[in-house]
Amino acid sequence: MASAADYSILFEPVKIGPVTARNRFYQVPHCNGMGHVRPQAEAAMRAMKAEGGWAVVSNQETEIHPTSDLSPSAEGRLWDARDIPALRLMTDGVHAHGGLAAVELAHNGHHARNHLTRAPLLAPSDLSVDVAYPRQARAMDKSDIKAFRQWHKAAALRARDAGFDIIYVYAGHHMTLAQHFLLPQFNDRMDEYGGSLENRVRLTRELLEDTREAVGDTCGIAMRLAVDEMRGAGGMQAAEEGRAVVEMLAELPDLWDVNVADWANDSVTSRFQQAEGYQNDYISFVKQVTTKPVVAVGRIGSPDMMAAMVRKGIVDFIGAARPSISDPFLPRKIEEGRIDEIRECIGCNICVSADCLSVPIRCTQNPTMGEEWRRGWHPERIAPKGAEQAALVVGGGPAGLECAMQLARRGYDVTLAEAGPEMGGRVIAEAGLPGLSAWKRVADHRLYDLSQRGNVQMFTGSALDAAQVLELGIPNVFIATGSHWRADGRGRSNLAPLTNDGALPVLTPDDIMAGARPPEGPVMVCDDDQAYIAGVIAELLAATHEVIFVTPAATVSPFTELTLEQHRIQRRLIEMNVEIITNHRLAALHGTAQIACTYTARLRDVACASAVLVTERVRETALFNSLRVQDHGLRALELIGDAANPGLIADAVYEGHRAARNFERDPAEVDAEYFRREMVALSD
Amino acid sequence: MASAADYSILFEPVKIGPVTARNRFYQVPHCNGMGHVRPQAEAAMRAMKAEGGWAVVSNQETEIHPTSDLSPSAEGRLWDARDIPALRLMTDGVHAHGGLAAVELAHNGHHARNHLTRAPLLAPSDLSVDVAYPRQARAMDKSDIKAFRQWHKAAALRARDAGFDIIYVYAGHHMTLAQHFLLPQFNDRMDEYGGSLENRVRLTRELLEDTREAVGDTCGIAMRLAVDEMRGAGGMQAAEEGRAVVEMLAELPDLWDVNVADWANDSVTSRFQQAEGYQNDYISFVKQVTTKPVVAVGRIGSPDMMAAMVRKGIVDFIGAARPSISDPFLPRKIEEGRIDEIRECIGCNICVSADCLSVPIRCTQNPTMGEEWRRGWHPERIAPKGAEQAALVVGGGPAGLECAMQLARRGYDVTLAEAGPEMGGRVIAEAGLPGLSAWKRVADHRLYDLSQRGNVQMFTGSALDAAQVLELGIPNVFIATGSHWRADGRGRSNLAPLTNDGALPVLTPDDIMAGARPPEGPVMVCDDDQAYIAGVIAELLAATHEVIFVTPAATVSPFTELTLEQHRIQRRLIEMNVEIITNHRLAALHGTAQIACTYTARLRDVACASAVLVTERVRETALFNSLRVQDHGLRALELIGDAANPGLIADAVYEGHRAARNFERDPAEVDAEYFRREMVALSD
Repeated sequence: MASAADYSILFEPVKIGPVTARNRFYQVPHCNGMGHVRPQAEAAMRAMKAEGGWAVVSNQETEIHPTSDLSPSAEGRLWDARDIPALRLMTDGVHAHGGLAAVELAHNGHHARNHLTRAPLLAPSDLSVDVAYPRQARAMDKSDIKAFRQWHKAAALRARDAGFDIIYVYAGHHMTLAQHFLLPQFNDRMDEYGGSLENRVRLTRELLEDTREAVGDTCGIAMRLAVDEMRGAGGMQAAEEGRAVVEMLAELPDLWDVNVADWANDSVTSRFQQAEGYQNDYISFVKQVTTKPVVAVGRIGSPDMMAAMVRKGIVDFIGAARPSISDPFLPRKIEEGRIDEIRECIGCNICVSADCLSVPIRCTQNPTMGEEWRRGWHPERIAPKGAEQAALVVGGGPAGLECAMQLARRGYDVTLAEAGPEMGGRVIAEAGLPGLSAWKRVADHRLYDLSQRGNVQMFTGSALDAAQVLELGIPNVFIATGSHWRADGRGRSNLAPLTNDGALPVLTPDDIMAGARPPEGPVMVCDDDQAYIAGVIAELLAATHEVIFVTPAATVSPFTELTLEQHRIQRRLIEMNVEIITNHRLAALHGTAQIACTYTARLRDVACASAVLVTERVRETALFNSLRVQDHGLRALELIGDAANPGLIADAVYEGHRAARNFERDPAEVDAEYFRREMVALSD
Repeated sequence: MASAADYSILFEPVKIGPVTARNRFYQVPHCNGMGHVRPQAEAAMRAMKAEGGWAVVSNQETEIHPTSDLSPSAEGRLWDARDIPALRLMTDGVHAHGGLAAVELAHNGHHARNHLTRAPLLAPSDLSVDVAYPRQARAMDKSDIKAFRQWHKAAALRARDAGFDIIYVYAGHHMTLAQHFLLPQFNDRMDEYGGSLENRVRLTRELLEDTREAVGDTCGIAMRLAVDEMRGAGGMQAAEEGRAVVEMLAELPDLWDVNVADWANDSVTSRFQQAEGYQNDYISFVKQVTTKPVVAVGRIGSPDMMAAMVRKGIVDFIGAARPSISDPFLPRKIEEGRIDEIRECIGCNICVSADCLSVPIRCTQNPTMGEEWRRGWHPERIAPKGAEQAALVVGGGPAGLECAMQLARRGYDVTLAEAGPEMGGRVIAEAGLPGLSAWKRVADHRLYDLSQRGNVQMFTGSALDAAQVLELGIPNVFIATGSHWRADGRGRSNLAPLTNDGALPVLTPDDIMAGARPPEGPVMVCDDDQAYIAGVIAELLAATHEVIFVTPAATVSPFTELTLEQHRIQRRLIEMNVEIITNHRLAALHGTAQIACTYTARLRDVACASAVLVTERVRETALFNSLRVQDHGLRALELIGDAANPGLIADAVYEGHRAARNFERDPAEVDAEYFRREMVALSD
């Protein structure tokens, strides 16, 4: 284990204009599905980051005016003084734990929708909104620009009044007016705000100057800039205009927060980018052209890399969004030399998916994320055990591992029995698929923790039946026996049983993950799950087989729109020559595969030598059912994880956590937590 | 004009159990994007219906428990007593205008998401959730069913306490547990809740009995049932099990609210179903098997049909969702013999689109819809004019017509000048396309109203330049000059100008709507608008041409997912043998069309003889710009509608209305309305 001293450089204070960060850990702005819709949850979640040691804790993009209305998305809002009290909850929470609070002011231009306000949409030039909705933004005239600057300045003053220490000017993710003006693809103006880079930078410069004038005496001013669009010569590049913009504005802000655009590039998943610090090549020039401190991101989780990045002069602050979600106490754990206790981000973007759905953030690794306010969960603290002494957890997948770990933390004598040859369940199985190796960290973190405890016994290769469970004499049993994939074709698009004459070899994802491979010849991957597994399996098999991908959806793996991966997944399959047949469901297997158009129900046969059915999962409930009907003398018996409700790995971890935390609690109190929510005030 | 007496049958009171409806006009439950997220807006919107004469005003599906959490959708919520005050706003509002208030209690089973509560998902059988999200609901065991019944009963009691007069048991739209239990496709249980119809009906029967026991002494109990799935023998049919269900439960509720499933069938657009009363064939049996009053829908807007339906014994109540949105005062207008003043629904489902987006409802015909609370707009009342006497409106499209009509209602002397040969602008042009004829009503309603007024002068064939405008000497000018479709290929997917050697004939939607047709040979319809026009044009041209439809989206007309039409549109094009190429944008025109894959950027040529470019619109601002730069002496000059921000017809009507209503108001007051919104309470 590394000693804390090795990382002392990370704990040096750094000035950001008039304010001082206590160390170099900087939670950059990131969405969380709370914002103005769930301000108490937002405040508690951000405060937890400060408690965990982050020197700067930012909120998320914050609408400054009704012409930048992102409804129904749950972002920040600071239209007028009425929004101040909600944001004050957050700044008070962050301050209480010694952090600086930052606000990311945003005007979203043609990325806004204005569905609630029905206000005019504004942009540098006449532009369609950036979704499939028939509305267009109008080119801002001089009076619009003047008004926009006034709105931004007024919002900065309100932000200061709300207690923020750092105020952003935001030009990133293709999401804001400041960046839209910067980029020729959005800006074809002929006036002093268009044409030359000097002209396109003008608005951002003015926003920085306006903000300085408004709040520069008391607040640090951060400039968030996407220095590279990752479109090559077709867009802004770090070595070209990206650098030039930083040079032009070098000393105007108090801090540079630099990244790449768009969001899917900034927050790329581990499936498509295994390396941490993957933005360093784009942003390392910045410190050469400004004396101001620099923060950057890139799913940086290793303290060694963090220290090296500071020592090498790449950054002054270690920026984090996802690693701070996975482990809000990352800075404290480094400071205290508890490196092995860090819950490393797996880069799955389940956090992002929640924001895309406008629901509270969740995290595969950190089940407490998003529950700080609603359930009062703390990532590092859990109540000690009550009267009970011992618990048995059956199943060592994500739900069982988390449940066992939390029960052990509470002080129970925990026995964890896994039927398979190793712990990890679906996490280990899925981690063996292309691109998903980082997911193994879900098991690694928990197995390491469990291995350090004296009150835990773990057994693999231990399939238990009801009699064996009862023989153990442990009165509290958590059943986390997981699920397996159906082989009969039933799923959300095929509710009736599939006609299958048995002639065509059929495999399931479980078979594939266990190492089985289809026979020679074309294989059809039938996806009715529509999440990620079918796409990954197609990618795996495309290396050795001709693959035909059939989905009732219009795209491959549509769920992955929410994790910002869909375009990469479908591109990869196309490039691997997978034949993609969308809008079709599997209709029958009769020697070959018959598929039906989801629009017309027209049937057609597609020749193939085998099929992989990725449709739906069957819960493993035999043990639970058997125990439940017996007069078994158990005091607690609970079914958790995929065995109760098949879902994401994040759901399984969450359910395991919930079960452990609620064990021996008053059931009425537990039930009441499901009802806790933020509500709309009934006076105007 | 028909006399009011002809329709006296529609104004007879009807008993619904212990309560009495004052007439036969019944606003069935419908979503509005407000619900528990915007309770003040919800209350004001529903109260307006009561003021307009509806005897019964229902809310929308109302979650009864955290296991039926539809977040982030803005539906009703009645989880516990904390939700009562918000709903009380609505019942008080409805009662104040003499209406009965109905609540649609709902448990959404595997149609719920539980993204906020993270509670278990429940269903009759193990089932995947009905969207592309990898979560599965678990089959409810007996204790789950018992608990569910208790939740429903408790919710009924809370609904009564909130002041509701009628309480629903809801089994429709494929959206609720009661219906999921009814249908074999979702229910493969082996116990007394599955198998025979008697068993599948059991849960619904129990809910009716429970509700009767809880609130039957004071509230009417409504049963909303989808009697036909419109899947033929593959689903429930009105003549088979649909009828049998009504027979089994005939006298249990106090009212039958019957329709067809799913939502897209119940609320089919005029594009795909021109006839009003289109559900009559499915529901007319109901009154034969029950003595209880019956309500049904079918976009019924004609008083003659309404009266006939009652006289023929098809229904007791005229149900309406969309016609009550288009004209909340429909009952009063019939009662008062003002038939010609009814704003008829055009069946465009823009109302539905708002709910799908979780934003407040809007309506193409009725721009005040959704603005009753926020802006205080009343569909039938508008403030009289101030000091000004006259106004000129340039452009007789939807924005200009609405603006002129409202200005005339305010008492101004209004001059309306249209450049084209007839009034109506894009409404008339688009109404000439296949399926869109009902849209003409947007112009018809306004032209009739304007024609009845003495303070309006209308001119067609009157293109005006700035000098001519000034010569008129009218000091207040509203410019509604609209927009035209670009011919250069620019759009949201093609921000750079398109390479075009000019060899291939190119048409725009304006050309098509003006009657131009492509030359012989294959025509490529290139859709970057992604709304509805390109799909309609493809349908039109497919009758005479080989059509290739190219879209950067994954589906044809993806916007129309929001209007519940997408599946019908794509099916129709497939059946008309249109070649559909998704995920491609137009890259160049060089004798033929070159398209680029949106995933890989791979280019390919597609042979065609012409192209119709449906990409983006150019605002017609020449007159406005010319007037603006002159020292013209005008006192008011405003650009409205598509000329200001191209959007939906609904947006143009709204902007015309807003401009007329805000004319001569204090600009600060007008501006303040953009900021009005409902906010979250900051205490738990």
